[in-house]
Amino acid sequence: MIYFDSDYMEGAHPEVMRRLCETNLEHTIGYGNDPYSIMARDAIRKATGAPEALVQFLIGGTQTNATVIDALLRRHEGVLAAESAHINVHESGAIEHSGHKVLTIPAKEGKITANQVDEHVTAFYSDETYEHMVAPGMLYITQPTEYGTLYSLRELEDISAVCHRHDIPLYLDGARLGYALASPAADFTLEDIARLCDVFYIGGTKCGLLFGEAVVAANPKRLPHFFPLVKQHGALCAKGRIQGIQFLTLFSNSDSQSEENKDVKEEYLYQKICSHAVTLAQKIRATFAECGYKIAIDSPTNQQFFTLPNAIVDSLRANNVSFEDWGPRGKEETTVRFVTSWATTDAEVDELCSIVRKVSK
Amino acid sequence: MIYFDSDYMEGAHPEVMRRLCETNLEHTIGYGNDPYSIMARDAIRKATGAPEALVQFLIGGTQTNATVIDALLRRHEGVLAAESAHINVHESGAIEHSGHKVLTIPAKEGKITANQVDEHVTAFYSDETYEHMVAPGMLYITQPTEYGTLYSLRELEDISAVCHRHDIPLYLDGARLGYALASPAADFTLEDIARLCDVFYIGGTKCGLLFGEAVVAANPKRLPHFFPLVKQHGALCAKGRIQGIQFLTLFSNSDSQSEENKDVKEEYLYQKICSHAVTLAQKIRATFAECGYKIAIDSPTNQQFFTLPNAIVDSLRANNVSFEDWGPRGKEETTVRFVTSWATTDAEVDELCSIVRKVSK
Amino acid sequence: MIYFDSDYMEGAHPEVMRRLCETNLEHTIGYGNDPYSIMARDAIRKATGAPEALVQFLIGGTQTNATVIDALLRRHEGVLAAESAHINVHESGAIEHSGHKVLTIPAKEGKITANQVDEHVTAFYSDETYEHMVAPGMLYITQPTEYGTLYSLRELEDISAVCHRHDIPLYLDGARLGYALASPAADFTLEDIARLCDVFYIGGTKCGLLFGEAVVAANPKRLPHFFPLVKQHGALCAKGRIQGIQFLTLFSNSDSQSEENKDVKEEYLYQKICSHAVTLAQKIRATFAECGYKIAIDSPTNQQFFTLPNAIVDSLRANNVSFEDWGPRGKEETTVRFVTSWATTDAEVDELCSIVRKVSK
Amino acid sequence: MIYFDSDYMEGAHPEVMRRLCETNLEHTIGYGNDPYSIMARDAIRKATGAPEALVQFLIGGTQTNATVIDALLRRHEGVLAAESAHINVHESGAIEHSGHKVLTIPAKEGKITANQVDEHVTAFYSDETYEHMVAPGMLYITQPTEYGTLYSLRELEDISAVCHRHDIPLYLDGARLGYALASPAADFTLEDIARLCDVFYIGGTKCGLLFGEAVVAANPKRLPHFFPLVKQHGALCAKGRIQGIQFLTLFSNSDSQSEENKDVKEEYLYQKICSHAVTLAQKIRATFAECGYKIAIDSPTNQQFFTLPNAIVDSLRANNVSFEDWGPRGKEETTVRFVTSWATTDAEVDELCSIVRKVSK
Repeated sequence: MIYFDSDYMEGAHPEVMRRLCETNLEHTIGYGNDPYSIMARDAIRKATGAPEALVQFLIGGTQTNATVIDALLRRHEGVLAAESAHINVHESGAIEHSGHKVLTIPAKEGKITANQVDEHVTAFYSDETYEHMVAPGMLYITQPTEYGTLYSLRELEDISAVCHRHDIPLYLDGARLGYALASPAADFTLEDIARLCDVFYIGGTKCGLLFGEAVVAANPKRLPHFFPLVKQHGALCAKGRIQGIQFLTLFSNSDSQSEENKDVKEEYLYQKICSHAVTLAQKIRATFAECGYKIAIDSPTNQQFFTLPNAIVDSLRANNVSFEDWGPRGKEETTVRFVTSWATTDAEVDELCSIVRKVSK
Repeated sequence: MIYFDSDYMEGAHPEVMRRLCETNLEHTIGYGNDPYSIMARDAIRKATGAPEALVQFLIGGTQTNATVIDALLRRHEGVLAAESAHINVHESGAIEHSGHKVLTIPAKEGKITANQVDEHVTAFYSDETYEHMVAPGMLYITQPTEYGTLYSLRELEDISAVCHRHDIPLYLDGARLGYALASPAADFTLEDIARLCDVFYIGGTKCGLLFGEAVVAANPKRLPHFFPLVKQHGALCAKGRIQGIQFLTLFSNSDSQSEENKDVKEEYLYQKICSHAVTLAQKIRATFAECGYKIAIDSPTNQQFFTLPNAIVDSLRANNVSFEDWGPRGKEETTVRFVTSWATTDAEVDELCSIVRKVSK
Repeated sequence: MIYFDSDYMEGAHPEVMRRLCETNLEHTIGYGNDPYSIMARDAIRKATGAPEALVQFLIGGTQTNATVIDALLRRHEGVLAAESAHINVHESGAIEHSGHKVLTIPAKEGKITANQVDEHVTAFYSDETYEHMVAPGMLYITQPTEYGTLYSLRELEDISAVCHRHDIPLYLDGARLGYALASPAADFTLEDIARLCDVFYIGGTKCGLLFGEAVVAANPKRLPHFFPLVKQHGALCAKGRIQGIQFLTLFSNSDSQSEENKDVKEEYLYQKICSHAVTLAQKIRATFAECGYKIAIDSPTNQQFFTLPNAIVDSLRANNVSFEDWGPRGKEETTVRFVTSWATTDAEVDELCSIVRKVSK
Repeated sequence: MIYFDSDYMEGAHPEVMRRLCETNLEHTIGYGNDPYSIMARDAIRKATGAPEALVQFLIGGTQTNATVIDALLRRHEGVLAAESAHINVHESGAIEHSGHKVLTIPAKEGKITANQVDEHVTAFYSDETYEHMVAPGMLYITQPTEYGTLYSLRELEDISAVCHRHDIPLYLDGARLGYALASPAADFTLEDIARLCDVFYIGGTKCGLLFGEAVVAANPKRLPHFFPLVKQHGALCAKGRIQGIQFLTLFSNSDSQSEENKDVKEEYLYQKICSHAVTLAQKIRATFAECGYKIAIDSPTNQQFFTLPNAIVDSLRANNVSFEDWGPRGKEETTVRFVTSWATTDAEVDELCSIVRKVSK
């Protein structure tokens, strides 16, 4: 069986496991005050070009979104987000559990525009009854989106500008941010993200770690009293160093031997493993396209969406290819999702491509 | 430096790490539906003598308490607990964040009595204005308590009976339950806990795992719709198998070679490593007692509390012994806590005892 | 100036004020346990044909919605509602404040269909990831809707049936229910509402009272422990008899002298004053129609919506007619709302009609 | 029967009813933007000596406490309060419903000291684990307390100073504030309260109104975005003018004929009716004392507490005197509460005193 179901089907990148094992018996204090967490925070500050940044490690994505949004919103405010946003659809009401409304904006392939945000906020304050309604208090976007699509640097700049003109913070959910940064379509850097977003997180769970998400606020004043809030949300790890060691590994030079390349940023393990996944995803996409299948969404990242005849869907599965339907099965054709990760091998992708070609004949 | 600060200063038990590494590249589906999680749930059902039990893995203790309490209480109800209870003191308001009041009962060394519970509930319903007050909707206890003390089997039976007579569920926080079960003072078993408590959790973080807590409800009807609530609380692990593998290791026979002993329950790794810790803790205690120091709390588990002259506290630290003050430093003497774990070695305890004797001369 | 801005611009119906003054110095116990509240609850039980009903008085609409929805939903559930529903748009996030998501359904003139509800619930449980999403736990509808439109008896029966087939309670917001019942288009009775809805409320604030809403659940088991929840939501009136006296007046025979008519239900003050308002609203509508203006929404109740040329909007206001724009002012025409109430007089409507005709020449 | 059960057993002061009836058919806009509400806010600003104050009308006490505390606290903070505080005991968990913990301080007859507050806050920040605990974010006190006792001006100044030294706002629950101000023991004025407290409320429900509480913040920046929060908490009255008219009457000169006295503040109806009640309460107390009964609490306000032999308790009731037990009935004696209000008459008190003397012979 070859697996393309998701990017959280394996443990952690072997280098991460190696470091966890190496340090396993060391004694450190808890809750993220250990030397590894301190080094990891510094490494992330360096990688994001934000030397003063608040960096806080949390455990999973839903929890991170709930905690950050709870920290950023005042009580009468809600969070603007695409209708298809993960927080609106797939978090079991975690945002509302903390008392906040998700204010939705119609999205196209997961993306919303600066103009839509502007219109929403402007219309809100133009309504005479606005004090009876939930004020837009922040904006949530995902990069890449739930559909694998990307905001360009220009789009991010526009969104950031409109948020700041309306004095609402911009928060970016980077559960798969590594795959965005590693995309050939990316015209932005991690520094750009840190500069344009008030708060964002670097997802670890889907990018090579056992678990862990790193919240970053270039200006720490954006997240006052964040630590007790993380604790209150049940998002604080007693053995914080587990996250520290993992993120430190992710933001270390991936080839510690090559002295001559040590300043090159793309050598971070984070970049290297995400690049690997994106390259393989593009190969899969090229093969489906070459065989004449519909590319459902034009994704330049590690998630690929195809609309395939049901017969082909079934043939692929009969050939031991594992992947998810994306939405309900249609009468004649079905949209499916293929996901690669750091753990996907060249051999697996070669085998998939060969099967695709075979069943398409 | 030798460390007795807490039981979460290291990674995971080496056997746990070994299993995580062995399985690291396997592909499994997420959110606890993988084979390891299924096997781990079965192992826990067997170990608790509760074949129908709901077993759900969460990540950390505060989160587990908040989620279980949120699941058990109706909206007009609060949770009865000792004044010194972790949920009342050290969880940054996580229980209140979900909308519930902690109704406190004065405690002695962390323990409350069945009689106190009875009196509270009886007094509540005797008050004519009770519908303006927060109804006692469940009872929370810790075993061992925050002070290392234990409820005896008889005490647990009495507490369970009074709860059920008043029709409120009993929930036991087992963050350190392994050290309770492994105590020479324990006259109860894991099966007793599962039988007497409506819900409890088997703590992994402080008993040999990287992280992870296993919620157990012998009667799964006690926790309907628990899965989406776990998700809502941000307590669901995408890579659920990480918890599954860890708990499966904890509840596997610790010596897979010894065929003749395979049915002996205390051979679970869980029991073995907790016994180790408790034995060392008792040795520490004996040494302090022998040297004439005050045993602050009579704890038969892995946490030991002594009230020492400040000069001794300082001497121990000067001798590279690391431990925590328990409360503020007094004028002449200070209560301190020594904690052992699976990771504490005989050599470390021998060294500590030798230092204690040395500074006491 | 003549006013058609809303149905809460005056105090209470004079008969209500008279009864409040008459009883003002009587001594009664608080919180709704007084004789007037008891009689009022009985009167409502009789009027709704629900002899066992739980009847609880709350103070205002937003608070009532928040409290009832909080009582009906389990924590992992949300409330299905029309996108245009008051709870989704104009309650400042009160529903989310209690931790619940509003799950929206596209609406037509404020109405949704049984079929839409069926599709939403069916699609929800067909999605493999449904446990990561907010479960539809109840349905909220308004009668009349925010647009003055009505559900027919058949539509209500269908909606009730689909809710009960899916085992979710149906809750009807009756802030203006009196105007629905009094509409010539109404083919349902108060008994029908009580029979088809698990919970609903009879709005007093907009139908003749100073304040007050009466929550009704024909089967009281639908709202267990409702009283402490009302208190918790800050919705309990110390001087409960104020609500009791008001509702008792509303549900008393409006003409206590006419012995021969005493069993006729429409003689309740509630019906009488709402009929008055609806009759006047229909007269306004006929006049606008007669003058050739667009009826924006086909409303058979006390709210009327017209799309008028801006010049006419301005002329009306220049003639001392007060009313609200409904949405933003358009470039050439604007939709406006005219509302009548028990306090609107025939003379005021005659004057309005005369002005409308005058400015239309 | 003569009633001394509570101060919310009647409707509103007749002058309030008169003004409500006089204005009943006037048309005004809703939600507190009407002329009466504007005038009432100005009258309260004048009476409190706080010309810039935010004044917002809410409906009831529990709701007011929940809304103000929700407005003042950040999410990681709790509210300091006496153990016996209304918010801790008799509000069905309304504070926790909004996510906040009540941090209790042992109280003496309902009062806490500046020193206790100082010690709590100092101890909190001295604890190394304070970020795992709920931070004291504000202080709640009641004046008079739940036991009828008063803070002196000096005590209020000390409490205010300690709060501001620790940078936490001071909030005073003035449900019965009028009875405090009217007490012969009062050495403070309404201006003092406004100056020393960041936020407080002037209770109307127990001081002559049908319902209504006026929140006052001398510095409106202390309560930013308060209006939508009031709406979110379901505490906004559609017919806001009902509160406006009532409070305007309460803060109008009680004798509109006496021109020569028009600037004398104690001529406000508020003061006049509360003075009346306190005077009668002191008469009751003197009679019980004279007859040799135990004064349970030394209260200089409108609530009086006596510890009486059970035979006397029963005799009083047999003589048609209505009052409440304060706590459970004792074996030999029981503490009872007698409350007066604006509605209590001299004749009723004379009758009571005569009965007391009679049964004591």
